This record gives sequence, C-alpha cells and structure tokens, in this order.
Amino acid sequence: MGVSLKDVASRAGVSIKTVSNVVNNYPHVTPQMRAKVQQAIDELGYRPNLTARHLRKGRTGIIALAVPEFGNPYFAELAGAVVDAAARHDYTVLVDHTAGLREKELLVSQGFRAHVIDGLILSPIHLETEDLTARTDSAPLVLLGEREYEAPYDHIAIDNVAAAREAVRHLIGLGHRRIAFLGSRTGRERQPAHLRLRGWREEHAAAGLEADDALVVVTDGYGREDGASAMAALLDRGGRPDAVFAYNDLIAVGAMRTLTERGLSVPGDVAVVGFDDIEEGRYGSTTLTTISPDKEAIARLAVDSLVERLAGGTAPEPRRQRPGYRLVVRESTTRSARSR
Amino acid sequence: MGVSLKDVASRAGVSIKTVSNVVNNYPHVTPQMRAKVQQAIDELGYRPNLTARHLRKGRTGIIALAVPEFGNPYFAELAGAVVDAAARHDYTVLVDHTAGLREKELLVSQGFRAHVIDGLILSPIHLETEDLTARTDSAPLVLLGEREYEAPYDHIAIDNVAAAREAVRHLIGLGHRRIAFLGSRTGRERQPAHLRLRGWREEHAAAGLEADDALVVVTDGYGREDGASAMAALLDRGGRPDAVFAYNDLIAVGAMRTLTERGLSVPGDVAVVGFDDIEEGRYGSTTLTTISPDKEAIARLAVDSLVERLAGGTAPEPRRQRPGYRLVVRESTTRSARSR
Repeated sequence: MGVSLKDVASRAGVSIKTVSNVVNNYPHVTPQMRAKVQQAIDELGYRPNLTARHLRKGRTGIIALAVPEFGNPYFAELAGAVVDAAARHDYTVLVDHTAGLREKELLVSQGFRAHVIDGLILSPIHLETEDLTARTDSAPLVLLGEREYEAPYDHIAIDNVAAAREAVRHLIGLGHRRIAFLGSRTGRERQPAHLRLRGWREEHAAAGLEADDALVVVTDGYGREDGASAMAALLDRGGRPDAVFAYNDLIAVGAMRTLTERGLSVPGDVAVVGFDDIEEGRYGSTTLTTISPDKEAIARLAVDSLVERLAGGTAPEPRRQRPGYRLVVRESTTRSARSR
Repeated sequence: MGVSLKDVASRAGVSIKTVSNVVNNYPHVTPQMRAKVQQAIDELGYRPNLTARHLRKGRTGIIALAVPEFGNPYFAELAGAVVDAAARHDYTVLVDHTAGLREKELLVSQGFRAHVIDGLILSPIHLETEDLTARTDSAPLVLLGEREYEAPYDHIAIDNVAAAREAVRHLIGLGHRRIAFLGSRTGRERQPAHLRLRGWREEHAAAGLEADDALVVVTDGYGREDGASAMAALLDRGGRPDAVFAYNDLIAVGAMRTLTERGLSVPGDVAVVGFDDIEEGRYGSTTLTTISPDKEAIARLAVDSLVERLAGGTAPEPRRQRPGYRLVVRESTTRSARSR
C-alpha cells in the first residue's frame, strides 16, 4: 500500500494542507516547516503526485483516452491498461467516450479541451482521413484501432487480417465448412469490421474453400443484442452454419445466447469464436474461444508514443506499430478445452 | 445525428478553425465573418460546446467521476449514465479509477486536480469519515455507494438493506432454506458488503429462519474470479447450499461458472441471485436474477446535486437521497423466466 499525504502529515505532526503546500512548492511555508515535512516524506518514502512539476513545464499532466463506449468491456480493460501505462510516466488519464458519434469524435480530435490535456489517444470509428488532416490542434495524437488513415499520426493496432485468418483457420482445422461472419458493415470499406471480414475471406481462399456471402450478417452495432439478433436472423433464413466467427466477443456472447434459446449446443451444433478476449468470455457456462490482442502492449505503445512526442526534440516520423495477439482456445470450439 | 463544426464550416464556406473561433468568442474574427458563421449555426441548429462559457465563469466545465474500477461493468454502465446526465448541463465528465486503493481515493477527494475539475462524484471503498471531514478542497463533492459517513456531503445510494432483503425473500419464497451469501468482508462494519449481509440476516429473521453463518463466504475482491473461488471453497467444505445470494453480479457469474464445472445445474441444484443488473447477466446461457438499481436516477441525482451546489446561492443542507431499485427475476432462480 502507498503512503498517503495523511501519513506524512501525522508523522510530521502537521496538517494535510501543510504537507500539500510543501509538496506543491507553494511559497507560504516556513523553511522549518518545509524541513520537517521533507523529513517525514523521506522517512516514509512518500512519492508526491507530479501535477505541480507538469504545470511548471506548461503542462497539465493529463492525457485523454477517447473510446467509443464505456459499456464495451474491451475498452474498459484497455482503459485500465492505459491508466497503468500512463502512471509510469506520472500522467493521469481522462477517459472520454465518444458514444460512437462522429460529432463527438470530431470535437475530441479537434482539441475542444486543449486547455486541459497534453495529448490524446483516440480510438475512432467514424472519422475520415480528411478530418484528421484538417486537424489544427497541436496536442500530440495517437490513434488506436482498425481504421486506417493516410494522416500523419502514430497508429497502434494489431494485424486484424492475420488475426481473423488465424481464427478462421482454427475453425477450418476442426472440420467446419459453413463458417458465418457476424458483425459486418457491408459496403463500408474502411469500417472496423472490414479487416476481419477480409481475413475471413482470405483464409477461405487459402484453404481452397468458397466463402459463402450468405453467411455474412450485418449488424447495427457491436453489442450483445446485435449478436443475438444477427444469429437469430441467420437461423431464421434457414442458413444454419456449423461455426460462427464473430466480429467481437460481445457479438459472440449474444450469438451463443440465441443458440441456447433455440436449443442448439455450443460447440456441438455450432462452434463460436470471438475477438477481444474480454474477461466475461472466460466465465460463461461455455467459455469462449477468442483472439486475444495484447492490451498491455497496445496501452504501453500508445502512451510511450505520446510521451516521446511530448518530450520534444526531433520528433520521429509517424509510425505504424503492431502489437501482438494470440488465439486462445476454449470450450466454445473444443468442449474439452479448459483454459481460462 | 448532431450537426458538426465541419457542417457549419461547409455551410458558411469557411474553415473549421474560423467556426471554432466564432463559437469560442475569440477576438480575431471580423464582424462579417462572425455574422456569416452565426447564420450557418442558426440555419443548421448547431449547438456549440460550452467550454468557453464555463471558462468565463472561472470554471472548466469538467466534473470528475471516480470509481473503484473500470473493469466492473456496473461502474462502466454507471459512468455512461453520468456522462449523459452531465451533458444535459453542458458538463464533460472526467472518469478516474481509484483501483480500490485508499491512497488514490484520498488523493482524489483531497482535490489533487482542483485546477481542472469543478466538482467530484466519488464512489469510495476505503475512505473513513475522518478523511472526509479533513478535506480542504472546496470543490463540491457528492458520494455514491454503500459506505455511510457522518460527513457534510450529499450521498446518493439505494437502500441496500431493503434491496438485499427483497432478494433473499424471493429465494425463501421459492422454498430455499440454505441460502449462502458470497462476497462478505467479515468484521469490517462499514465495508461495502456490510449492508447487503445485514439484509440477508434480517430477512432470515423476519421469516423465522436461522441465518447460518457457515454459509457466508468472505472474498478478497468483487470480481468473477472471487465468486468462482468462493463457490468452490463453500462446496469443498461440504456446505452445499440450495441457493446463493451474491454481493454483486460478477461474483454471481463466477459462482455459476464453478457450479457448471462441478456438474451442478442452475437453478435446479442451486439458485443464484446477483446485484447490479449488468448487461452480461442477461446473456449467459442461464440468465441472472438480480437487484437492478436505477442507474439513471443515481447518475441524475448525483449530477443535479453537484450542479445545484456549483450554481451557488443558498446551498441546501447535505442530503441523503435514495434512488429506486427492483428485483428482476430471470432463469437463475426460475428456469421458465425469460425476461431479459
């Protein structure tokens, strides 16, 4: 457990306010008082927050992380990793959600809170390249996620095509031939699902199989309800697959719920693979096989990129970085798999 | 869909930067330009963000919400509701997580970012009344959650004892007599689980039943893993219950996973009730009966309290407000229940 301001105050025999004044280098503290507090700080190994130090450099010590939704556990888990990575550089993280709205993404990327934040990590859904090239805010920006841009910003994302191919290869290897893709946004070349759908297609081709477009289901969103209704729609049109590759774990969870309601077993009747490796997938009555992006690496690379640019000096060219991922096999494709 | 800065810029035939300058009332805009942009704003019904207006009042337009963890979907869902409630008052929300650390709760409550935020909504776990009475930061503070304090701050929380009693009453009504409580923090009178455990005890007494303390399991935390290991511990010591009342939904989810691994059916062998009504509970292969706190009301009351205090005038006495809740019956107690 960390040492608190209060611990320091009680050791030094002064008020918390006085300790705070010393830590923040405020002028109205006598040298004697300062020495007394400093001694308590040294004895207890107290580590003050560095807001004051940031402020002296004309910074706030705050970076923003803007994600499409708090409600998606993937972003909640990623946000936790970003908070940890930022803390190692003495940065606090302001988490913002864009609610998947283009308007909110624009506001955030245009720096509507430039007076508060030193830099921004943004996971966009709707922004276009021209929105980013039109950006006038000077705070460093790092992009996350699958959208690809021809804009001069660092971009951190796993290789979504390769990861999707690995998921589909796993299903083909288990003997499945009718493999559905749930969660497409057909016709929108740069939308998030595009790369994973491409992986689904490419892996079929590589295996000499025909990818059946009748097994691709478009959804409105990325949630459990979208997965449940996509699965129902597919079954209702008589297109029962023997396996499902879902755009993400939430869609997979929704699809599995529909399969349960229809009396179909997972993986006996239909095998299911998700994407994201959210903790929820490890605890269902059928645990979920999924692609697990290295969230710690994503967070670390994003924060390190921002910090490097904030440090000034010769800023490197915008970089594209690809953290790792792995396929985690669980019960939804192989009943005997017991890994969590 | 909202109207964007870009829409206004394109209607007015000017750059986004110019629109931003007008919206923020910056001086270096010609009256002609200002009129042109204002006309486009009026025609499109664009609603500018009010950061600039807040700044003129010496405010930042930002309130902070500090929760114990992003990873718990209850807090993620609550955060979404707070963001919505705050937006109605033109406030932006900075979401912070205290990681369940006393040190971080202290830092947040002491106003370590007072230069950035106008007010704070805090859901504490470890803070004590004396920590709050020692608080020197002048920003309004509203408390959420089950911890009760004798400190002069608004506090928003559902009636946890009554809600827990309703959950246990439901199980007793179904004929269950060996009802376990998972997630206690025994001996810590003011810890979060205390009130729900009291409800468990009181409802047994009201029904003329003996509450068996051997069925109370202490956990380290509030997550799925804690529920899974608590359930395993209870079964391992031969204390198989016929029902479980879990401190929260995550503990319930973990407990159900252990029951599945042990070959026990829910609700056939063991009925399970959770607390929080997180979306995950509606999608498992067995949907989860739970206490559903009114998250929108909690968020609205918290934001309204802050806004009222920020508005100044005669500040009301600190208030204790109790938003509503309801029991939602699903498959984990009544197999035929199909409600989501």
